[in-house]
Amino acid sequence: MKTTNRNLSRALCAVAAAAMWASTPALAQKRTDEPVSTIPAVRNIDPAKVELGKKLFFDPRLSKSGFISCNSCHNLSMGGSDNLKTSIGHNWQQGPINSPTVLNSSLNLAQFWDGRAKDLKEQAGGPIANPGEMAFTHELAIDTLKSIPGYVAEFRQVFKHDKLTIDEVTSAIAAFEETLVTPNSRFDRWLDGDNAALSKNELEGYKLFKDSGCVACHNGPNLGGNSFQKMGVVTAYKTASTAQGRVEVTGKDADRLNFKVPTLRNVELTYPYFHDGQAQTLTVAVDLMGRLQLGREFTKDENAKIVAFLKTLTGQQPQFALPILPPSSDKTPPPRPFN
Amino acid sequence: MKTTNRNLSRALCAVAAAAMWASTPALAQKRTDEPVSTIPAVRNIDPAKVELGKKLFFDPRLSKSGFISCNSCHNLSMGGSDNLKTSIGHNWQQGPINSPTVLNSSLNLAQFWDGRAKDLKEQAGGPIANPGEMAFTHELAIDTLKSIPGYVAEFRQVFKHDKLTIDEVTSAIAAFEETLVTPNSRFDRWLDGDNAALSKNELEGYKLFKDSGCVACHNGPNLGGNSFQKMGVVTAYKTASTAQGRVEVTGKDADRLNFKVPTLRNVELTYPYFHDGQAQTLTVAVDLMGRLQLGREFTKDENAKIVAFLKTLTGQQPQFALPILPPSSDKTPPPRPFN
Repeated sequence: MKTTNRNLSRALCAVAAAAMWASTPALAQKRTDEPVSTIPAVRNIDPAKVELGKKLFFDPRLSKSGFISCNSCHNLSMGGSDNLKTSIGHNWQQGPINSPTVLNSSLNLAQFWDGRAKDLKEQAGGPIANPGEMAFTHELAIDTLKSIPGYVAEFRQVFKHDKLTIDEVTSAIAAFEETLVTPNSRFDRWLDGDNAALSKNELEGYKLFKDSGCVACHNGPNLGGNSFQKMGVVTAYKTASTAQGRVEVTGKDADRLNFKVPTLRNVELTYPYFHDGQAQTLTVAVDLMGRLQLGREFTKDENAKIVAFLKTLTGQQPQFALPILPPSSDKTPPPRPFN
Repeated sequence: MKTTNRNLSRALCAVAAAAMWASTPALAQKRTDEPVSTIPAVRNIDPAKVELGKKLFFDPRLSKSGFISCNSCHNLSMGGSDNLKTSIGHNWQQGPINSPTVLNSSLNLAQFWDGRAKDLKEQAGGPIANPGEMAFTHELAIDTLKSIPGYVAEFRQVFKHDKLTIDEVTSAIAAFEETLVTPNSRFDRWLDGDNAALSKNELEGYKLFKDSGCVACHNGPNLGGNSFQKMGVVTAYKTASTAQGRVEVTGKDADRLNFKVPTLRNVELTYPYFHDGQAQTLTVAVDLMGRLQLGREFTKDENAKIVAFLKTLTGQQPQFALPILPPSSDKTPPPRPFN
């Protein structure tokens, strides 16, 4: 009886959802000739794998201290970033670089500012074992997870085998991260043909963004993330940061200070800006980008219009229930925050 | 048209929910003569205030560093605690005491281990301004919130006035925390008359829990939280902790090492145990409590039965969407994690 009623409940809700779907108004002509495109829908989702990855993303037991999780520096309440100049790692170490947003990161050509990880799966293993970040080892992280019966069961259910290695962990985290897209920004609605989605001011900002050359690097669905470019093309960038960028991966001197172009999606939420977090506001970031990369000094009015446009790139933030983590067992090694 | 369909959707879902509700089986006689009672339902909820409080609870901008939120030490993914012996504060300071769970904390007679805050509202202001925890001041926290347009609008909507002080902040956080109850544990289902909710072993554990005297302090709806008791009644407690307990509030020497009796609700999730976090497992905690408080050495079998009973106290964890925080503005003072 209870099952029948639950099925009835599901069926009625499905009918209701279909009714809403059918009511989406017909849209005007899509804009397909722009250098920016809408965010593609997420495909091939394995819900159980995503759910497991979400738990791991929020689990501080993947760190030596038991205090730092992926979400600490890629906080999904705050645009998938930590809103700090550079991140805080184990033992309050000051990180060398600004935490890039995890939102829409599946659209990037590679991961990390220097692109040293080819995809999200490869990236996910990095911070866990980085002594300045989560300060654990893959081996200890796996030992911890294997001691937690709830995880063991869930990994088995998702992967259909009993192996629990860093491969399964990073694969699940990456599957969750692939769902972290932010569709339906006002700019995307405009691209989809909704002329009322942008104000005159914002449209003028977009035109300036295109005409002055910003779009040369910040293009595609992620407005960036698809190339490496030198920080300081026209004028050298002054920074206290020691990050050298792409050269650390390729060894080629020509790649010095080449960084992955950051996405501008949700840029309103991902302050402060640049690899060193030096620009606290969009106004400062736009001004500096104009001078450093384009040799152009934007007027106050131009700057404000570009900033207004950039704020239309804030999309729907991922909505999901805070995961409840399976408890440790008596065999779980206690975290070691202070030694 | 869209609105009509949305209303249809809501109506159909309501029908579906009612159908499920109607199928709840009739329960046997409730057990009302036990020293433990079920968790009372939350009343008088102001949903907008709770939503605002939830955002504040998750917002690290209430800390000097911009890195530590209420949820850092009262992690709602982990039983409302941090699962560390003692907590990590600003600049990785080692806290003096084990973080008590925020779950069901509205049922406690007072807040903090020494009861120095009379209620949740008073408690909520403590960690923000504690130099060893969030290391901010109330003034700076308010300045920060006032610079965030999304918060200013939300405070106005909730409180129907333009005042934004620490009073409004702690009142909203407390409202959210009052919703963090965990009903429907297996033990509560047994109290409600469901005889199949507990195994024979678990029931024997409950009987031992009552007969050997644990229930003298761990009683009521929260199985604790309703009195202060000395840690080490029969045998003195050996600890490196300098926490002195209730004496620090009353100044009375008789209150030395008197602590608020912790709740046993969700105790399976809130390891490690005691004010100093010295007991890593329930087995150790039960053993030590027997020796220290009751002068009784539980056999291995007795200990296992009590632990089995304690694990039936895990209730439904609060389920809610991770809040999306309103972004800072150009006027928001940047966090200062490293100075």
